[in-house]
Amino acid sequence: MKLLEERIKKDGVIKEGNVVKVDSFLNHQMDVQLFLEMAKEFKSKFASHNINKILTIESSGIGIAAIVALEFGVPVVFAKKSKSINIDGDMYTAEVESFTHKCKNQVIVSKKFLGPEDRVLIIDDFLANGCALQGLISIVNESGASVEGIGIAIEKGFQSGGRAIRNLGFHLESLAIIDSMDAATQSIEFRAQES
Amino acid sequence: MKLLEERIKKDGVIKEGNVVKVDSFLNHQMDVQLFLEMAKEFKSKFASHNINKILTIESSGIGIAAIVALEFGVPVVFAKKSKSINIDGDMYTAEVESFTHKCKNQVIVSKKFLGPEDRVLIIDDFLANGCALQGLISIVNESGASVEGIGIAIEKGFQSGGRAIRNLGFHLESLAIIDSMDAATQSIEFRAQES
Repeated sequence: MKLLEERIKKDGVIKEGNVVKVDSFLNHQMDVQLFLEMAKEFKSKFASHNINKILTIESSGIGIAAIVALEFGVPVVFAKKSKSINIDGDMYTAEVESFTHKCKNQVIVSKKFLGPEDRVLIIDDFLANGCALQGLISIVNESGASVEGIGIAIEKGFQSGGRAIRNLGFHLESLAIIDSMDAATQSIEFRAQES
Repeated sequence: MKLLEERIKKDGVIKEGNVVKVDSFLNHQMDVQLFLEMAKEFKSKFASHNINKILTIESSGIGIAAIVALEFGVPVVFAKKSKSINIDGDMYTAEVESFTHKCKNQVIVSKKFLGPEDRVLIIDDFLANGCALQGLISIVNESGASVEGIGIAIEKGFQSGGRAIRNLGFHLESLAIIDSMDAATQSIEFRAQES
């Protein structure tokens, strides 16, 4: 999505260690007008899937997912991160490792809000090694719902998460895929995509 | 706001200890169509304030705040909860106590995204003792921005948070104010309001 790629080039800050900071418009301050354009793009990419629920994970996925849900006209559920081990039986759970915070989190979704009747579009802001996404897919599978699609704002194409998910046959669409970036020159290369 | 009050009566579950669970439409699964109606209500209540930024706090405020921001046509910033004590000088910080989780959290906002030019509408899903809200107000004050208004979905009117904030002269609007509730009979009384 050219609009997002140009925004990353304009306002993203590349740091050592293959980190790109997009906190001015994506995951601390949020440009919801941009989110609306992204939501329209997801709507067109997943139009044929008859989505009836959006699933995301707290916290930085929630803003995008809420506006995607508005565009699709369906509810959104966000998975919660929990450190507690005493989860009662009313919750689907998965364990995910956080790249940023270097810790393991349990991720939970109430069984009331996901079931076999659900056709789910998973939305998140970033895809790198794919740990969070694998946790969400595992929760959808546990519920008996179907993962109809996965929509990501920014994928780090040089990490393995996206390839693994595509190899598993999921319909994954990332609006911007970073193939390489360089903190010294602040240069960034995106993978060529259709739109 | 009658629509929200009716939804709380229909889908809210009252638990012992003055807890009302609204996780089916407000803070786990989110009914974004309802959020859009709530956003229109906030827009009309704060129309005269020339708001240019929405501020909320992770996680459950983010969904509502994103859709309110879309309605106002302004960006939204969400304050992050942080356990770390080593916050660098680029952050505004406040300490808040969590009623639900019984722990103290540091709340942080990057200095890049809040400053004297900002006319802020604070949005959150719940107001009870007001600790989170006091932290957000403190951060806005520290930044030199002005708190133009505070928009809350559900206020527990029998706790002191709302009264204290109103006594301080803030323009606080809660779309539903619970005056009393009873887990045994699942009955709930709302304070009479204009709309």
